[in-house]
Amino acid sequence: METDARRPRVVIVGAGFGGLAAARGLTGRGADILLIDRTNHHLFQPLLYQVATAALAESDIASPIRAILRRQADTTILMGEVVGVDSARRIVVVQDIGEFPYDYLILATGAAYSWFGHDDWAAHATVLKSLDDAAEVRYRLLSAFERAERCSDPDEIRRLMTFVVVGGGPTGVELAGSIAELARSTLVRDFRRIEPRQARIVLAEAGPRLLAAFPQPLSHYTVRALASLGVEVWLKAAVEEIDAEGVVMAGQRIASSSVFWCAGTAARPAAIWLGADAARNGAVKVAPDCSVPGHDDVFALGDVASQDGSNGRPLPGLAAVAEQHGKYVARVIANRIAGRPPPPPFRYRDLGSLAIIGRSRAVAWLGRLQLTGFPAWLFWLLVHLLLLAGFRNRLVVYVNWSWAWFTYGRGARLITDPDTIGDEDEDKDGDKKEEEPKDRSLPASRSAIGPK
Amino acid sequence: METDARRPRVVIVGAGFGGLAAARGLTGRGADILLIDRTNHHLFQPLLYQVATAALAESDIASPIRAILRRQADTTILMGEVVGVDSARRIVVVQDIGEFPYDYLILATGAAYSWFGHDDWAAHATVLKSLDDAAEVRYRLLSAFERAERCSDPDEIRRLMTFVVVGGGPTGVELAGSIAELARSTLVRDFRRIEPRQARIVLAEAGPRLLAAFPQPLSHYTVRALASLGVEVWLKAAVEEIDAEGVVMAGQRIASSSVFWCAGTAARPAAIWLGADAARNGAVKVAPDCSVPGHDDVFALGDVASQDGSNGRPLPGLAAVAEQHGKYVARVIANRIAGRPPPPPFRYRDLGSLAIIGRSRAVAWLGRLQLTGFPAWLFWLLVHLLLLAGFRNRLVVYVNWSWAWFTYGRGARLITDPDTIGDEDEDKDGDKKEEEPKDRSLPASRSAIGPK
Repeated sequence: METDARRPRVVIVGAGFGGLAAARGLTGRGADILLIDRTNHHLFQPLLYQVATAALAESDIASPIRAILRRQADTTILMGEVVGVDSARRIVVVQDIGEFPYDYLILATGAAYSWFGHDDWAAHATVLKSLDDAAEVRYRLLSAFERAERCSDPDEIRRLMTFVVVGGGPTGVELAGSIAELARSTLVRDFRRIEPRQARIVLAEAGPRLLAAFPQPLSHYTVRALASLGVEVWLKAAVEEIDAEGVVMAGQRIASSSVFWCAGTAARPAAIWLGADAARNGAVKVAPDCSVPGHDDVFALGDVASQDGSNGRPLPGLAAVAEQHGKYVARVIANRIAGRPPPPPFRYRDLGSLAIIGRSRAVAWLGRLQLTGFPAWLFWLLVHLLLLAGFRNRLVVYVNWSWAWFTYGRGARLITDPDTIGDEDEDKDGDKKEEEPKDRSLPASRSAIGPK
Repeated sequence: METDARRPRVVIVGAGFGGLAAARGLTGRGADILLIDRTNHHLFQPLLYQVATAALAESDIASPIRAILRRQADTTILMGEVVGVDSARRIVVVQDIGEFPYDYLILATGAAYSWFGHDDWAAHATVLKSLDDAAEVRYRLLSAFERAERCSDPDEIRRLMTFVVVGGGPTGVELAGSIAELARSTLVRDFRRIEPRQARIVLAEAGPRLLAAFPQPLSHYTVRALASLGVEVWLKAAVEEIDAEGVVMAGQRIASSSVFWCAGTAARPAAIWLGADAARNGAVKVAPDCSVPGHDDVFALGDVASQDGSNGRPLPGLAAVAEQHGKYVARVIANRIAGRPPPPPFRYRDLGSLAIIGRSRAVAWLGRLQLTGFPAWLFWLLVHLLLLAGFRNRLVVYVNWSWAWFTYGRGARLITDPDTIGDEDEDKDGDKKEEEPKDRSLPASRSAIGPK
């Protein structure tokens, strides 16, 4: 409760679904809001795999945070990386920029993928979390085909045209299905020497089934639908090794130049900043009002919060949870500012789960209703068009999708920045040069590239 | 003339307007065509400044070469960088890949900007030729505002919000006008501490007028139109120095963190590969049939060819010239293959010149007709929609443009890849970090960033 004339200061870290919902909920409630994100855009993450597979452009699924919140005069946006919280001094530390005091702090920093202790694998596999990641996946995918086309060693061609997706959750399923469609439909007439259709796409899941959060029948349907697209689904296949040559899983080595990692989830280090109690994945164990125990002016939400749902199981890492959390926390803080009693404890309203498998196939789990195939896909399409932030994006995405659907074409398959993307580790950098060293020994004559 | 059964091999270097037109013109004429480009896409360069200023996305103005030519079974596409030609052995050398023999060679490698001997300036200024360049310009523009917003030193804010465009040709005019609109309309409500409207945009031209290739009245109109958008036009202002702090021209130093270079033209080194006679800008002096004197199986076209028009003046560096050249050279080669007499010498059909100055203003020069203002802009819009390669792009671009026009919003203003773009030189790399060193000494407290 604020009694002095100074407006309370709310700092929100992260402009994902949760942080944005909190900022929107808090505007006009008498607080000064500072929203900090390390990018300048809000990302519609559920469609990131479509950017990665060249169906959509970056700007189709991302909007500048400043543009989204431009009408909120009480909200300041800062592009910067939060590296710590001093809860005693009530201060947030932003790298290279400085310290920002808060009266209320909302941590909505989300999650990254977990390497399960094998951080060295990161040098040989690409994750899919940010726009830059998507650009890197796209670069790897498209340039693998380019390199295969000008290669004459059959083993190397096979390696280049083998794509391994690790992780059988929605992102892994969607990415694998989308790569299969790219290879078997979109690119099919683009090359003269290789047959993109012969690309091998492997989806590896350590557990016994895909989409473990969905009901069993939908998992089964998903395996069948992926198989019909030509995706090999490996279940109970834990990854044992990832190196420059490929991946070892279930005791077998698969030679691949393109390993995509969509497995595990690790919350970003908010719990460490606070010294707070964390779940196994690093998420902050929050109270029923999303506050952090021992810090009643600090809240965590979405993927960085660990909270049980009404069924006693932890809430899933969905955009819908983050968004509802964000709205809820905004109410909690607004009530405190206004001196009103707190709202009842948070309760997640389950709106269902969706995953898309490919052109006109999806699975949808809406409480008692389970949809598969075309009806699920239509439902998915509708929901995502409604959810995308901003009318313009919706219209452009709709045009892109319609076009892709009718033509199997993908307009965004541009190879950009080959020398710079992902240069944070040496191995990738080497891999990134337009030609791998082994290709240099090719018989480099017209017979190696000429029209068939 | 080919008398043996072997199909003649045509190698085309460059998939710009000229190379693509040549490839299209040659298909089905009995030759095997190899089209080599260092990117995987054809770029609609006249709209590149719109990607640079966040009005369009990369994929709106670029199409995969393989997709454009997928129906040409006699055409192979190779993504690679040509580094030399051995005209005695009739071989093209592609970096890291190998050598490719030709019977006919078409050089359509285009032009780059010329630093007029000051190659060190490249470390402090950004050009605008490729998609990666456009992404870098966009990054510099948008992050300059971000940095200004969190800065408290008035001099540094002024430096960050000063944008200098060097070169008063169409690209410079379009870029300067577009930056002015970005600052004065699109971003105007996005920030809390800075006034994007106060951004200073300087367009510097060494010569006595803008758009020197256009008639005088259109140049005058352009200066007035730019002034009304808030662009300072400096004429007879040759650049004397560009360094990390800004630019010196006409004896005056302008502190700026964003210098964009659209001046001069240097043909790519095709003349050097051939040891051929070159014009001052490096373009190959070609015969009336576009062949290179002394190499009647080698042709140069577009920006890499130097050829006089019917008015006795060198043909301009326009997409239309390259495209007509490409079609023409395809006919020359097709006739030779078929044993037919050569077509009459090349004659450029002038379709007019266009430059856009901003929202609803442009200049058009169509022979005796000179248009300015809204009619010219409408004409420009129509022409560009018709010219863009591919129906899908046209539709999406149209939606993006309509949206931008009615809302002043720019959908593509995403800051991506801040750490990797343009890391080819150290200075830029240092500049690229989210925070410049000087910002670190800021009084980093809420008062420096809080809402006004």
